[in-house]
Amino acid sequence: MNTPENKLIRRILGKSSRSSGLHSDLSLGIGDDAALFIPRSGCQTILTCDWFLEGTHFLRDRHPADSVGWKSLARAVSDVAAMGGTPRCFLLSLALPSELTGRWLTDFLGGLRRASRRLRCPIAGGDTTRQNRVLINVTVVGEVRSRLALLRSGARASEIIFVSGRLGEADAGLSRLRASRGKIRSSDPVLRKHLYPQPRIALGQWLADHQLATAAMDLSDGLSTDLARLCASSTVGATIDASKLAQATVQHAWVSKWNGNARSGSGNPTSAANKALLLALNGGDDYELLFTVAGSQAHRIPSRYGGLKLTAIGEITRGHRIELLQSDGRTTPLKPGGWDPFA
Amino acid sequence: MNTPENKLIRRILGKSSRSSGLHSDLSLGIGDDAALFIPRSGCQTILTCDWFLEGTHFLRDRHPADSVGWKSLARAVSDVAAMGGTPRCFLLSLALPSELTGRWLTDFLGGLRRASRRLRCPIAGGDTTRQNRVLINVTVVGEVRSRLALLRSGARASEIIFVSGRLGEADAGLSRLRASRGKIRSSDPVLRKHLYPQPRIALGQWLADHQLATAAMDLSDGLSTDLARLCASSTVGATIDASKLAQATVQHAWVSKWNGNARSGSGNPTSAANKALLLALNGGDDYELLFTVAGSQAHRIPSRYGGLKLTAIGEITRGHRIELLQSDGRTTPLKPGGWDPFA
Repeated sequence: MNTPENKLIRRILGKSSRSSGLHSDLSLGIGDDAALFIPRSGCQTILTCDWFLEGTHFLRDRHPADSVGWKSLARAVSDVAAMGGTPRCFLLSLALPSELTGRWLTDFLGGLRRASRRLRCPIAGGDTTRQNRVLINVTVVGEVRSRLALLRSGARASEIIFVSGRLGEADAGLSRLRASRGKIRSSDPVLRKHLYPQPRIALGQWLADHQLATAAMDLSDGLSTDLARLCASSTVGATIDASKLAQATVQHAWVSKWNGNARSGSGNPTSAANKALLLALNGGDDYELLFTVAGSQAHRIPSRYGGLKLTAIGEITRGHRIELLQSDGRTTPLKPGGWDPFA
Repeated sequence: MNTPENKLIRRILGKSSRSSGLHSDLSLGIGDDAALFIPRSGCQTILTCDWFLEGTHFLRDRHPADSVGWKSLARAVSDVAAMGGTPRCFLLSLALPSELTGRWLTDFLGGLRRASRRLRCPIAGGDTTRQNRVLINVTVVGEVRSRLALLRSGARASEIIFVSGRLGEADAGLSRLRASRGKIRSSDPVLRKHLYPQPRIALGQWLADHQLATAAMDLSDGLSTDLARLCASSTVGATIDASKLAQATVQHAWVSKWNGNARSGSGNPTSAANKALLLALNGGDDYELLFTVAGSQAHRIPSRYGGLKLTAIGEITRGHRIELLQSDGRTTPLKPGGWDPFA
């Protein structure tokens, strides 16, 4: 059959089913009513889905289509990483305008396939339709050994709070993207994390396999918002130490050069450090891991895991208060200041 | 945490997690990074996702929100039924305008929960965001005993083609909905199948368990389009016998009274039969099953299964031609005339 929809489905499958190699446990991919998948024994199945919508999550005239493809899969895979799991396959729901079925779609599929190969997560199925804006929804299916999944609900008072990587980098990249005129240089280091985030799959697996983390989640909406979610799930509070968090923020040079972001102030060095801290607290899209470790186990967390910085930034507390210990010794409430689509 | 997004998530979960009863094999529902699901041993996992978009798949001012909720789940579950599987859980991705978080959302969730209970398919997770139009994407996870899944690719020449139910009923309902002025009576029998389709789960399971069907799929885009898909997957052709299909069409009374559909002609009795046949061939959204059975097994297919009409409507042929045997003995090519969003 050569209907327009079938042609589009074949393009989506295209090289994807060959080059990313439908795994042998994916017994049937796109082309039937549904995909069939053989679960591994001794594992639980992880299910997650994520919107990625033009105008809300990306701007068609600013974000390279290749980045849209990469990021739509990477951010959904990040939820699997946050559970300590391995991605196994994904479903792509794609709605797009007819005029984008040329170059834009080719670039989008290019980025998606690169992510699919890199994250070892082949496409298993999906749904396509036409819309006047690009709408993407990605479902990722993963697996984790039974009883080893990292949950948000396991944090207890006195445990140490860790984050991976440098927080605020993606938001700094978004500011540069918004401020930039003309063609985007995808290779710009300030843009890379915003355009091509890396889900922390290996770190999540390591934390789960060694039963090191008592709770974990990925940072998608900003530390201040996501930490509050973890604490609510665990019925605990938290104190973040600003001087420790300062070791895990975006580089000051990345935030001092421009004022594209509404939260940024003037350009002197002190202000750059403050900006970096604000971005680390409230910037979204980093897809780093936030996790808690019992005090007696904290020495087992290295300062780097596979080149990725790991930083202790605070402590879980009794009660429900979430506070920031400032460098001057004052403690102030830390309000959720990250991304909320309904705020 | 009481952020607007969290409040929305709690409303979605609301009674759903209690009244539809998160099954014991769903070890973790909404509220963590992802859902965890314990697969049954000896089963394959079925994965499917479906768009349900305002303006494309439903009209906000015509379709009751309750029907939008029901149908968004039912049509995705239908893909699991078409594989001979059992639905296990679903993920809801919902984007909606702020002004619809009141009555509209309550009614939508009411319909969704009824479908969730009736189809024994509890909610396991999802994603919410804000948009100026309602966007819905539903992923359904199902299971089927290993090696028993019904595929599209198994049909062979000389096998008998069956359909369940009466085709064209949903399209007749859509025409009435479009032509109607003022308030919709959801209880109108002509509207029911369009508004509240019933996935054929029991029939699919029975066909799979008894290894009766050689191929199967659900009819979502119209017989002429979907049969071509099944034939392409199986590398076969087909001849549909119009006089037999006439036994499985929408009732003439449902199509003779109005001319809301572009494919309809004048209102005399002959024309009503023709209209019914055209609707049966090209009308979408019926979610009946199309399946093939070896000639030697066809006697095992009853004329009704649990009250649902089953009708032999033609035969699989060698080659790739898909034809309609008219009541006057002529054979004409049957072109895909159903729904194609990119046509």
